[in-house]
Amino acid sequence: MTAEVGRAPGTVGPGARHERDGWRHRHVLDVDDFTLDEIELVMATAAEMKEILARPIKKVPTLRGTSVTIIFWEASTRTRVSFEVAAKNLSADVVNIAAQASSVAKGESLVDTIRTIEALGADMIVMRHAISGAPYLAAEHFGGHILNGGDGWHAHPTQALLDLYTMRERLPEGSVAGRKVVILGDVLHSRVARSNIWTLTKSGADLWLCGPSTLLRGFERWAGATIPGSARFTVTSDIDRALDGADVIMALRIQKERQESGLLPPLREYTARFALTRERLRRAHPEALVMHPGPMNEGLEIMPDVATGAQSVITDQVTNGVAVRMALLFLVSGVRDVE
Amino acid sequence: MTAEVGRAPGTVGPGARHERDGWRHRHVLDVDDFTLDEIELVMATAAEMKEILARPIKKVPTLRGTSVTIIFWEASTRTRVSFEVAAKNLSADVVNIAAQASSVAKGESLVDTIRTIEALGADMIVMRHAISGAPYLAAEHFGGHILNGGDGWHAHPTQALLDLYTMRERLPEGSVAGRKVVILGDVLHSRVARSNIWTLTKSGADLWLCGPSTLLRGFERWAGATIPGSARFTVTSDIDRALDGADVIMALRIQKERQESGLLPPLREYTARFALTRERLRRAHPEALVMHPGPMNEGLEIMPDVATGAQSVITDQVTNGVAVRMALLFLVSGVRDVE
Amino acid sequence: MTAEVGRAPGTVGPGARHERDGWRHRHVLDVDDFTLDEIELVMATAAEMKEILARPIKKVPTLRGTSVTIIFWEASTRTRVSFEVAAKNLSADVVNIAAQASSVAKGESLVDTIRTIEALGADMIVMRHAISGAPYLAAEHFGGHILNGGDGWHAHPTQALLDLYTMRERLPEGSVAGRKVVILGDVLHSRVARSNIWTLTKSGADLWLCGPSTLLRGFERWAGATIPGSARFTVTSDIDRALDGADVIMALRIQKERQESGLLPPLREYTARFALTRERLRRAHPEALVMHPGPMNEGLEIMPDVATGAQSVITDQVTNGVAVRMALLFLVSGVRDVE
Repeated sequence: MTAEVGRAPGTVGPGARHERDGWRHRHVLDVDDFTLDEIELVMATAAEMKEILARPIKKVPTLRGTSVTIIFWEASTRTRVSFEVAAKNLSADVVNIAAQASSVAKGESLVDTIRTIEALGADMIVMRHAISGAPYLAAEHFGGHILNGGDGWHAHPTQALLDLYTMRERLPEGSVAGRKVVILGDVLHSRVARSNIWTLTKSGADLWLCGPSTLLRGFERWAGATIPGSARFTVTSDIDRALDGADVIMALRIQKERQESGLLPPLREYTARFALTRERLRRAHPEALVMHPGPMNEGLEIMPDVATGAQSVITDQVTNGVAVRMALLFLVSGVRDVE
Repeated sequence: MTAEVGRAPGTVGPGARHERDGWRHRHVLDVDDFTLDEIELVMATAAEMKEILARPIKKVPTLRGTSVTIIFWEASTRTRVSFEVAAKNLSADVVNIAAQASSVAKGESLVDTIRTIEALGADMIVMRHAISGAPYLAAEHFGGHILNGGDGWHAHPTQALLDLYTMRERLPEGSVAGRKVVILGDVLHSRVARSNIWTLTKSGADLWLCGPSTLLRGFERWAGATIPGSARFTVTSDIDRALDGADVIMALRIQKERQESGLLPPLREYTARFALTRERLRRAHPEALVMHPGPMNEGLEIMPDVATGAQSVITDQVTNGVAVRMALLFLVSGVRDVE
Repeated sequence: MTAEVGRAPGTVGPGARHERDGWRHRHVLDVDDFTLDEIELVMATAAEMKEILARPIKKVPTLRGTSVTIIFWEASTRTRVSFEVAAKNLSADVVNIAAQASSVAKGESLVDTIRTIEALGADMIVMRHAISGAPYLAAEHFGGHILNGGDGWHAHPTQALLDLYTMRERLPEGSVAGRKVVILGDVLHSRVARSNIWTLTKSGADLWLCGPSTLLRGFERWAGATIPGSARFTVTSDIDRALDGADVIMALRIQKERQESGLLPPLREYTARFALTRERLRRAHPEALVMHPGPMNEGLEIMPDVATGAQSVITDQVTNGVAVRMALLFLVSGVRDVE
């Protein structure tokens, strides 16, 4: 049943509505504590949301009267706007706050800000913060629902879920189970990679992490340990071996400002050794999916012809991001019916 | 009749609606020219608005089609968002403009900006400006309604009204008359203090201003003068005397960037002598209210356990701020019925 | 029939609706390829929109469900807000993105941003960009509609159309044909001037460009060439000759930050020689219109008494800007009926 969800959204009927009873998260802080059933529920609900996005008027009154505050302490375009569009599509009221990192130097100030937003009437807070764990602190002090839009290097749960949705939508049989999925690049600093590791291993993917060894530090140990209820994954700097027969390749953004850390090789060297080029892509399955969380440095970690080529599903990721976030806003709300 | 308003909002019926005939302000620039009846009208209307905030869907169509532009030349989160939420709760259309101080160096430019906002179709402008009196200049050139969200050191009328509302909601008999209210801290640079002085003395409170003598300059003279129709207030640097038996203590924000002015004592010394601590609070009435306009420097002018303790009504202030601003937007609009 | 449009908007009936069949632009990138009929169609539709702006509730459901993203890489208040108000008046959903110039250093990045905005669900993009031609690049990669809110020195089509609308609304017989229109100031760096040249010469105005010769460079040649289907225009640094008997004088903004380029004369000298003063205005027709695209440097390129005098239509320009942008959003949408 599960496998069909991504493939044939039209089949999601009253049964899916019933499944919502299985939802037990007040917040979406990370995906590490999501069960397989919960992941399925998100996928099925997102499929319903995609049906709404296909209509001429993409708006449903589901969350009318719900107040959503979006506060990002780190700059963002796509994630912030994606949440804003998702909330507005559900008819929620959206308030945007552009926070400066400086105004929350101390933990107390973050808590004070969260309490203030609650007192202003917010039912949900979507937040991004440079400090890993900040949304957990926020959740302890907020009576409503926190949705994590990325915290430090730690987690980016909505990205991992939209990535999974995109893979299932495109892979044969609508499942990542047994598929070779390669995450390529600066894994060390990537919250996108960390959250994807949880959803992909839990879903039974054959997961490979590949990049310069300095940017894989600590992951060998994680791969070696047994994560309860999940498969292990492979960590390598051998890109040829990683790409060989791959079904999905997800290139991560290289953050140039990290150059100074000494962990990144010179950019030209990085591109020579690890960029996703047309030549390298030939090692993968002929219909392998090319993914990237964006924004891309085209010509650095991914070549423009690959980014916009026939195998790229990068813009699908963006569109699916709106559907997945609509699904999560809806699920945490406790509202029973989409329409 | 007055005393009941804050206590029993449910009793505000058609009579309150009738009272609205008494409203004569096109703008809300300061509270210094509000009569006691007008203050009562704001309180009664805010009580009606709080009823709306208690509903599952906090939205009424009262100001549908009214266009509200919020332009803040100084950074702000809580006041800006509070006005935005208040306007949206009343179904007004809101446009946010993030102005840079630099773009209004000259008086003419401020006027030009106001004229432009009017020509763009705004019915109301909510503004904050670093220059005292800026909203008065704006009001001379705007055909609609100006609401002052804070101007220089001069005035912050909506803050004073939400403070008064919060005190009345919590004080026995719903009145500040005869109650000892202490404003504590950097009174000199505080528009919050200045506006509170007007509403509190007019309402018959026993008002005390307390802080380092450099930060009380000029207020002794003001206290000595007779403000027509209002009681005088006490100015002191003796915090023990100020807190003794107090019914309300409002700690002001210390603006660290003012350190250079030479008026502020070293921060550690300030905290030692004037911070609102649990020990100091014991001098006050056992059920004294703890208030702060926010954002707080916890550990500097107020201790975290006091800020979040049982006597704190700081988050009530934030919530009441939305209700009071809804009331003021409604009252200036001239619309007769809330619903 | 055309001439009446600006004068008697009430006469625009079902006939105007029929004319919409003549609209063939998917985007609004510049006015250089607008036919006279298309310009008339914009004027007639804007007149309908002005009727809507005159109502107590300025909102029509015309673009309900249409998603408009406004992304400005250059700072702006009036144009950005004007588009936002225009879109909201038509009940479109608006998303604002404050882009930093740095994030689109490379052409690829601009394209990537546009693709992302499309994938997020935008039907229309309103954009301003420092690089001339950027909206054309965007239009090649966007499946929806691009509206140019100003690109480099190149074009500002909505400004030129609102300027034309304002002239026709105020000039006798509602036409610029044969009228002497003077554009005064820093023509060289002005996208406003460039777009106005197209609409004004095409409409048969007697167009004069006037300013310091360093700020008119290249325009003599343009004036000398025959622009197909349009009249030529006069280029001069002789302000007395330019203003003599003028029907319209449009002063351009002097961008002080251009001082360093060496092209601008010292500001005091500029003001002495080219500022629009009350004395200079006397050379023009006694009822000549005074215009300025804003924001003004009052006292530099235009004197305050002239800017706010009886002949000024500067705030009309702002109001008409909302109507013209409503018209353009409506026309590109392909929706047939305003209401």
